[in-house]
Amino acid sequence: MPYFDYNATTPLSLAARDAWLKAHEEAWQNPSSPHRAGVRVGLRLQAAREKVALALGCAAERIVFTGGGTESANGIINHLARTLSADAKVAVNPTEHPCVLAPLGLHFGGDRVVNLPVDANGVVTVDAVKAALTEGEVKAVLVMAANNETGVLQSWEEIAKICRAAGAACICDASQWLGKLPGAGLGMADWMFCAAHKFGGPKGVGFLLRPTAENGFSVRPGGAQEKGQRAGTVDFPGIAAMVAALLDCEQTKVLHESDRVRTREAFEQEITRRLRGVRVAGAGVERLWNTVTLIMPHGENHRWVARLDKCRIEVSTGSACSSGKDAPSHVLAAMGVPGDQARRVIRISAGWETTREEWQELADALVAIAPDLKPADNVISIG
Amino acid sequence: MPYFDYNATTPLSLAARDAWLKAHEEAWQNPSSPHRAGVRVGLRLQAAREKVALALGCAAERIVFTGGGTESANGIINHLARTLSADAKVAVNPTEHPCVLAPLGLHFGGDRVVNLPVDANGVVTVDAVKAALTEGEVKAVLVMAANNETGVLQSWEEIAKICRAAGAACICDASQWLGKLPGAGLGMADWMFCAAHKFGGPKGVGFLLRPTAENGFSVRPGGAQEKGQRAGTVDFPGIAAMVAALLDCEQTKVLHESDRVRTREAFEQEITRRLRGVRVAGAGVERLWNTVTLIMPHGENHRWVARLDKCRIEVSTGSACSSGKDAPSHVLAAMGVPGDQARRVIRISAGWETTREEWQELADALVAIAPDLKPADNVISIG
Repeated sequence: MPYFDYNATTPLSLAARDAWLKAHEEAWQNPSSPHRAGVRVGLRLQAAREKVALALGCAAERIVFTGGGTESANGIINHLARTLSADAKVAVNPTEHPCVLAPLGLHFGGDRVVNLPVDANGVVTVDAVKAALTEGEVKAVLVMAANNETGVLQSWEEIAKICRAAGAACICDASQWLGKLPGAGLGMADWMFCAAHKFGGPKGVGFLLRPTAENGFSVRPGGAQEKGQRAGTVDFPGIAAMVAALLDCEQTKVLHESDRVRTREAFEQEITRRLRGVRVAGAGVERLWNTVTLIMPHGENHRWVARLDKCRIEVSTGSACSSGKDAPSHVLAAMGVPGDQARRVIRISAGWETTREEWQELADALVAIAPDLKPADNVISIG
Repeated sequence: MPYFDYNATTPLSLAARDAWLKAHEEAWQNPSSPHRAGVRVGLRLQAAREKVALALGCAAERIVFTGGGTESANGIINHLARTLSADAKVAVNPTEHPCVLAPLGLHFGGDRVVNLPVDANGVVTVDAVKAALTEGEVKAVLVMAANNETGVLQSWEEIAKICRAAGAACICDASQWLGKLPGAGLGMADWMFCAAHKFGGPKGVGFLLRPTAENGFSVRPGGAQEKGQRAGTVDFPGIAAMVAALLDCEQTKVLHESDRVRTREAFEQEITRRLRGVRVAGAGVERLWNTVTLIMPHGENHRWVARLDKCRIEVSTGSACSSGKDAPSHVLAAMGVPGDQARRVIRISAGWETTREEWQELADALVAIAPDLKPADNVISIG
C-alpha cells in the first residue's frame, strides 16, 4: 500500500526498533540512579550524545535530548522570551510550523514579531534577513531548514552566518531536513531542533542544539536531568532508537538523494503533462527529494485524499497537525496562493522505501480520479 | 541481580513491550493525518483513552496524553498560573516531587505558596488542609498520592473532597501510586497526573486528568493535537504500551498488594532486629507495599549504595532525579529528620517481580556490610 505521508510521520526503522529493544533489555535503568547500572546508562547516554555531535559536526555539550520538535520549539522560544530584552524583536519566516508560530505569538505578541517576506516559492531571501537585521531591533531570526508542506529548502547556512555577524540568534527547525539530507553543518545555527519520528525513530523523542555559551537554558523546571536543561526521567531507549535511526540515514540513506530527486522530478513532469492545470508548489526552487505539493486543477483536497485512499494510496491535505482544520494552509497563503486554490492542495511525501513503481501508481491514480472530481456543472446530468 | 530501585524506573513489562511492537506494526501512522490509516490510529487512541477512563472511573474527555509526569506537572502549574487570580495562593505538601515544587516556585514566587504542615511521618493531615482553606485565599492544593522517597500515602480522597467543598482545585501527583495500588477514585482530584515508566510502561509517556469543565487548558501551544490541549505528534505506540502496562497492573498485579505488604513488613522487622539503630522513615503510617526508606545507624548513603552494588543489589540514595545532588532530601527535612541522619538514608523500592528471597538477600547484605561502614574511630588501627 503506497504511503505518501512521510512528512507526517515515518514507520519505525529496523535500526531504531532493534536499538529500542536492546536498550530495554540492557539499559532500561534510570541514568540518574546512583548504582552502577544507572551510571552505565548514563555513559551510554553520553556516547549517544557524542554520536549525534559527530554526525552534525558540533560540540556534544550543545545537545539536549527532548520529547520532540514541539517541545523543543516551545523550550527555545520560552527561553528567548525570558532572556531577550523587553523591546527586542524576533524575525520569523511566515511558513514555519505551528510549533514555532504558536509559542512565538504567545510570548512575543503581535508587535514584537517581524514577518520576513518570502517569494512566490516560500523562500526567505538572504537580503530579506539582512534588511530585517539592519536596524538592530531584531535579536532572533527563526527560519526552518526545509518546509514540511512544500519541501522548499531555505538558505539556513547563509542565514546563520548573517545572524552571527549581526549578533542575533538564529533558530533553525530541522525537523524535515534531518534524515533526508545530510545534517552536517546544521550546528551553524545557534539553536536547532528536530523530531525522531520524522526520520525513522520513535515518536516522543527529539533533540535540540543550544549555543555553546548559553547559560541557564531549561526546557522546563523539575529534576536535574540533562544538567538541569530538561527535567524528567531520561528516555534512554527512545534516544538510542533515535540515534540508530539518524545514523542509518546519515551513513547510508542520504547517499541516495540525487537518485530520489530524479524520481520526484520524473513524477512531477509526468503529472503536469498528463493532468492539465495541475501545479507544483515551489516548483522553481530546491526542495526535499521526497515532497511534492500539488495544487490540483479542481476538486477539494479532502475528496482527493478520500479517492486516493480507495486506491490504497495515502497522501495528506497538508501538515498533519493542521489537517483537521478547515482554514487553508498558512504556508501557501504566505506564498500568495489564493484560498480557493489552497483548498485544492494535496501533499505527497515519500520515504526512502518508496519505489518508482509506487510513484507511477500515484500518477496513474491521480489521472484516473481527476474526471470524477470535476465540478458538477461539467457533469452531464441524467434524469 | 536484585533491583530495588523501582521508584526510579521499572523495566518494561511484557504487556507494554508487546503492545508497543504491535502498534508500530499496525498503527504507527499519525492520528492527525486525513487518510484512513491515520483515522484508524485516531480511533485506537480514543479506545485507549476509554480504557484508562474505565480503570480510573472518570470521564474519558478528562484524559490528556502527555510525555510523562514532569511535563504534566509543568503543564498543570503553568495553567494555574495563567488562570488563577493574581492574589490567589496555592497550598502545597512540602514533600512533593521537584517536578511540582520547581514550577510552583517559578510561577508563584515565595509569598503565594503556602507550605502545608506535615507530621513526623510526612503526612498532610486533613485538618491542615481545612485550616489552609479557611481564609479563602488558597485556590489550589497540591498533595501527592504516595511519596516517591518514603512511600508514605496521603489522604488524597478526603483532601479532594475538602477542596471541592471549598471551591479550591485539588492537584494529585499519582506517579508512584498508579500501578502499585488501584487507580479507581483518583479522578476525584480535579487534576491528576502520572508517568508510564513507573508502572512498567515506556519512558517519555504519561497522562493527566483535567477537570471536566476546564476550558482552554493546554500543556503547550503548537499543533491542534489532543483537541489543542497538547501540541506535538501523538505517540500512539507509547500510549498503547502505557495502557497495556496499566491494565496489567490494575487487573492482575494490584490484587497481590496485601501479600506484598506482609513481605515488606517482614523485611522491616528483620532489619530493625538485626541492625541496631536502623530506623524506617514513616514507620508509623500506611505506605506503598514496595518502598522502605532506611535511616542507617552509620555510614554515608553513597557508601551503602556502592557496597550493596558490589553484592549485586541495586538501591538508591533517594529520589533518582535528585540523587546527583549533595543536599539532603527535602522530604526527610520536612519530616524533621536532621541533615546528618538524612545523609545516611537509603531508599529501597521493590517491584511486583521482586521475590521474598531477594528481600532476604538484601537484609543479609545490609547486616553483613554494616560493620565495614562504621566510623573510623571504631576501627582498630593497624600500624
